[in-house]
Amino acid sequence: MQRAMQAAYLPGNSTVELRTVPVPVPSHGEVLLRIKASTICGSDIRAIYHEHLGKGPEGYQGVIAGHEPCGQIVEVGPGCRRFNVGDRVIVYHISGCGVCNDCRRGYMISCTSQKYRRAYGWQRDGAMAGYMLAEEKDLIALPDQLSYADGAQVACGFGTVYEGIEKIGISGDHSVLITGLGPVGLAAAAIARKLGAQKIIGIDVVEERLKLAKDMGLCDETLASGADNVSQVKDLTGGFGVERAVECSANAAARATAVRATRKWGRIVFIGEGGGVQLNPSPDLIHDQKTIYGSWVTSTWLMEELTERLVRWGLHPADIITHRFALSQVSDAYALMASGKCGKVAVCFDEELQATSAEGMNRK
Amino acid sequence: MQRAMQAAYLPGNSTVELRTVPVPVPSHGEVLLRIKASTICGSDIRAIYHEHLGKGPEGYQGVIAGHEPCGQIVEVGPGCRRFNVGDRVIVYHISGCGVCNDCRRGYMISCTSQKYRRAYGWQRDGAMAGYMLAEEKDLIALPDQLSYADGAQVACGFGTVYEGIEKIGISGDHSVLITGLGPVGLAAAAIARKLGAQKIIGIDVVEERLKLAKDMGLCDETLASGADNVSQVKDLTGGFGVERAVECSANAAARATAVRATRKWGRIVFIGEGGGVQLNPSPDLIHDQKTIYGSWVTSTWLMEELTERLVRWGLHPADIITHRFALSQVSDAYALMASGKCGKVAVCFDEELQATSAEGMNRK
Amino acid sequence: MQRAMQAAYLPGNSTVELRTVPVPVPSHGEVLLRIKASTICGSDIRAIYHEHLGKGPEGYQGVIAGHEPCGQIVEVGPGCRRFNVGDRVIVYHISGCGVCNDCRRGYMISCTSQKYRRAYGWQRDGAMAGYMLAEEKDLIALPDQLSYADGAQVACGFGTVYEGIEKIGISGDHSVLITGLGPVGLAAAAIARKLGAQKIIGIDVVEERLKLAKDMGLCDETLASGADNVSQVKDLTGGFGVERAVECSANAAARATAVRATRKWGRIVFIGEGGGVQLNPSPDLIHDQKTIYGSWVTSTWLMEELTERLVRWGLHPADIITHRFALSQVSDAYALMASGKCGKVAVCFDEELQATSAEGMNRK
Amino acid sequence: MQRAMQAAYLPGNSTVELRTVPVPVPSHGEVLLRIKASTICGSDIRAIYHEHLGKGPEGYQGVIAGHEPCGQIVEVGPGCRRFNVGDRVIVYHISGCGVCNDCRRGYMISCTSQKYRRAYGWQRDGAMAGYMLAEEKDLIALPDQLSYADGAQVACGFGTVYEGIEKIGISGDHSVLITGLGPVGLAAAAIARKLGAQKIIGIDVVEERLKLAKDMGLCDETLASGADNVSQVKDLTGGFGVERAVECSANAAARATAVRATRKWGRIVFIGEGGGVQLNPSPDLIHDQKTIYGSWVTSTWLMEELTERLVRWGLHPADIITHRFALSQVSDAYALMASGKCGKVAVCFDEELQATSAEGMNRK
Repeated sequence: MQRAMQAAYLPGNSTVELRTVPVPVPSHGEVLLRIKASTICGSDIRAIYHEHLGKGPEGYQGVIAGHEPCGQIVEVGPGCRRFNVGDRVIVYHISGCGVCNDCRRGYMISCTSQKYRRAYGWQRDGAMAGYMLAEEKDLIALPDQLSYADGAQVACGFGTVYEGIEKIGISGDHSVLITGLGPVGLAAAAIARKLGAQKIIGIDVVEERLKLAKDMGLCDETLASGADNVSQVKDLTGGFGVERAVECSANAAARATAVRATRKWGRIVFIGEGGGVQLNPSPDLIHDQKTIYGSWVTSTWLMEELTERLVRWGLHPADIITHRFALSQVSDAYALMASGKCGKVAVCFDEELQATSAEGMNRK
Repeated sequence: MQRAMQAAYLPGNSTVELRTVPVPVPSHGEVLLRIKASTICGSDIRAIYHEHLGKGPEGYQGVIAGHEPCGQIVEVGPGCRRFNVGDRVIVYHISGCGVCNDCRRGYMISCTSQKYRRAYGWQRDGAMAGYMLAEEKDLIALPDQLSYADGAQVACGFGTVYEGIEKIGISGDHSVLITGLGPVGLAAAAIARKLGAQKIIGIDVVEERLKLAKDMGLCDETLASGADNVSQVKDLTGGFGVERAVECSANAAARATAVRATRKWGRIVFIGEGGGVQLNPSPDLIHDQKTIYGSWVTSTWLMEELTERLVRWGLHPADIITHRFALSQVSDAYALMASGKCGKVAVCFDEELQATSAEGMNRK
Repeated sequence: MQRAMQAAYLPGNSTVELRTVPVPVPSHGEVLLRIKASTICGSDIRAIYHEHLGKGPEGYQGVIAGHEPCGQIVEVGPGCRRFNVGDRVIVYHISGCGVCNDCRRGYMISCTSQKYRRAYGWQRDGAMAGYMLAEEKDLIALPDQLSYADGAQVACGFGTVYEGIEKIGISGDHSVLITGLGPVGLAAAAIARKLGAQKIIGIDVVEERLKLAKDMGLCDETLASGADNVSQVKDLTGGFGVERAVECSANAAARATAVRATRKWGRIVFIGEGGGVQLNPSPDLIHDQKTIYGSWVTSTWLMEELTERLVRWGLHPADIITHRFALSQVSDAYALMASGKCGKVAVCFDEELQATSAEGMNRK
Repeated sequence: MQRAMQAAYLPGNSTVELRTVPVPVPSHGEVLLRIKASTICGSDIRAIYHEHLGKGPEGYQGVIAGHEPCGQIVEVGPGCRRFNVGDRVIVYHISGCGVCNDCRRGYMISCTSQKYRRAYGWQRDGAMAGYMLAEEKDLIALPDQLSYADGAQVACGFGTVYEGIEKIGISGDHSVLITGLGPVGLAAAAIARKLGAQKIIGIDVVEERLKLAKDMGLCDETLASGADNVSQVKDLTGGFGVERAVECSANAAARATAVRATRKWGRIVFIGEGGGVQLNPSPDLIHDQKTIYGSWVTSTWLMEELTERLVRWGLHPADIITHRFALSQVSDAYALMASGKCGKVAVCFDEELQATSAEGMNRK
């Protein structure tokens, strides 16, 4: 007799609907996960929760919600080759066809298959449920030293940041500017720190975020967003500007600041999604020989490498989670996330529901 | 009722054994190919044909031979997502597990799975037969402008060369030295030419190869292997040496020549397999700020890109094939290849058996 | 008794003033050049000829005009170490202090010395005269195979292009888009061709320029500037877009086209000076993992390397010169250049005045 | 009336000769330095002190010794543009012609002028004297936060290391192996640490060096040189090997270890001078897609950047100096250095002679 589970859906009117549905059965190349932690992505609120605004890759097809899954394998379908029952795993949040050129590079995010590219929680059932099916090829091994809540932050958040930072290269050679100190910006600061950056400067409009970034030891200097940001950053860097900038805000003014506050020969990466930017190439890029990189999510293999690095660094992504809820309280979880009065919000199960919040992102 | 086919095996005493075996049936994620062209790899002779010397990745497990397959899909197993019956395809010659870190980067050549890493023709049935099973994830689309014989040269030969050349970067900025002018070295010259190199210098011990390289227009200058090679190359390059060197010979002296004949700030890639090299780092590398790259085979995705480039370039890898045989003459094919008195040797089927040899590698 | 020479000045009212002045004498580290070819830079017209609009690095300080000098050494001051009387030389067009960090990298263009950074023809006497003083450190050896007129195109034009192209890397792997087909854009096409690019697409608003680019064999395809350019470029590149784009127009729409018509993982370099650009980072950069490079002029040492490459390639920059004048006709030269009805305009002396225009930029 | 000074010469029989000579007067482009710190280079002992073995770039031409100068400008010759009396400066230890291609890149170490390339202390008067002439173009500004003794370590030691490390890139992403823990290896460890490396493994034959590297906190793990080093390093790195290796020993076995203990896709830089290396490219380089970089000294501009980084990092190169001598005791200084029972040995003047040795290289 088939088992049943609770699962959350997003009808698009700022509510969450809990339904009882059958626990699914893994097909060829699939596994069944017991979900342990499922965090809410900013895109879930922006494009789905209030209203179904998302199109294409962000289109919501009435599936079980939950775009940032982490759990444990409880059943393995036929044809799996690497993972076994009991394995702790992260799920790369976009399931691609696996055989197009983009998927072969590991970038399932840009899978070119109209039919097979399906994001978890958007076009195929996601993690706001007791159990979830995932394709084996989408799984990233979760090291023992990381919690499931840590793992849930890797795919959609820390992985995206790590890709962008690896593109521009950050080490102890560099002072780093981060524009936008939401979860993505904080992740950027945390990773830049572990890569060796000794002066990290953060900019945001929200005072609480600036305070948090400093209290957590993630930024050495913080600046309220404003017209003087470029000269402020130069004052903090011997008049030169930063060697590297990571743009996480998607704000047009912040993007221009990120470019203009970067030093001669420096590099800027744009990660924040949406909106525009206006630049004057001669002073902004050409005369200072600067380079701007666009970066989108990451590959499966770099995500795996990130988990190895997180262990080495003693870096726990879950430290940006401020609130945890049981699935029965999932409505409260989405409402809180929609209010913005929080860090990252997680729906948790089993041992992860018991876990207390950590004291700081850099604890060993 | 199951169909039967002829298939060639290598018992290891310098003979080939033809057996009648059933045509296999594709499982989940597999396709059945009608083989059209199957060329003989140098490793087949070195490690298997005369005696079963190959170990590990080169170990021969009594399977149908044929390490360089190209054909047409005649049947598609369940779960395939991209390729269909009638598609013309190259097979990446090493089938990996598909889910380890190396496979996820596209480098199935270095798959870390003891169980699932199997080279076609060595540990799983290969292309010296009328039909062959392949995993869909191992398939590279063969563009219409390339023949099956072209395709058979891509996986094990041109792909390996392209990877190495992309690592060091070759363009019209560079004069290029190629040490070793067997099929791999000729492929290196052909690709370097298409990338823009205007002075290509080739070195080999075999006079016929030097002549062939020049007659095909692949090398601008050729040198018989000898103790003066470094100064000869410098004489041909204004006293500087080449900006790039591609080592395809695996010979210790040639490797040293490749390094020493390279200009200050230049780059060398080692592709040729086996043997050793003795260097004096101060004069050979340090004082001239040179870099040596090791490069092994390539990734599935770069191989796909190569096929796109071959079409743009009008470059036909099959032009290095000098002899074609029907499967019934497969013994003669291996014997000829073992004699060394030939370019590349192919076993062909259907339309490819009728194809006449081409006039030159650079024809449009 | 001191010798006298004619020299041209730009009073800023769209006229040129010829004066008789003493032939200068080289100080320590300086040489005296007999000018052989002196071409007119677009900036001369834009910022000085009509009106003295240039500020800072483009400010005109009432010196002898002529920003693109090439000539022969006739006298060597004390302390020179490399160049001798009779040597044929190009002059790097910005004389820096030589000892700041930028100068030490070879980028005198961005010399940080307020006192010693002086552009030839703008802040120190330039090449519109029979003779000119130059610092030895600013000299680039002109190979015998290049004419003085070729040399005059290197510093301000071909050098700038080469730097930008080397930053993004162009080879036979790449189709290339060039936006803006003035002298800089034509130089970009000529160099991209020699580096191996097989499909070069040019965009401009001026029909004559499009025709010229095609007639000279520098572009394979040309497009009139318009709203459909992105889709037109994609149509010409199998739907993908170009792998590399070189932006030479400084036009906002063309800049956006250069970015948007570039393929996934592609690179764009901005060379054209002035104006702005408006981008939407998510579709324009992030989702396709693209990179934009700013590039300004070049270094002395890369300029030297370029002259070596020009010889290898048989590429003659002077082929873009359409009109030659004696110094006595310098007024006509500037007037013609200001009219725009020409390619590059040169004031020439001695043997260069006799030289006829060449047939095409790619002649050997 | 001309002033006199004491100056040390190396007759080549393991003694030092002190002579009284006139204080020199700066010519055009030169400055006169009051020497403050002058350390002894390993090459001084190896190639000059015992016997004049050095050839070419290492040939000793009977000049005042002292290859690692640091001091203060007391007189400025005509034509200087950047530095003034009172400025604290490091001297790039090889004075090149300044106008060849290598010098223009900033790499005076490989200046191609037979006439003008002269190393301080080998072919032109060096720093073992009260005063020394230097060309302005050879000067690197010494920031206030660094001592003269710090500065003396930069040119020949830390600069060389920094160049090599920048070539391979080191950050918190990497575990790092350093083979050879003499002054160069210790500098490599100190810089790797500041760049973010969290696991630094050092190998040497001398037990005292291993202890020193660990006591100073520069290496996390140290290994006595031996046949098991490769497997030991793998054991310390999860079985993978290090991502980066810096070879400072010039020992053939250590070089092979550096290559073999490096992880798949890793990078190795060879810095240590002299001797040979024997490699088996297939397992050592090709199958693991590794790259070996040769690196020689550094450029003037990167050396300037290093001084900026040292200040940011609070890293004091002088911490590897274990003994300081007055010039009158210069014989004892060389004798001690020749004995090997020391770290770095310095001849100091004025305030630097009073300075006590520091407690550890990482003090802020």
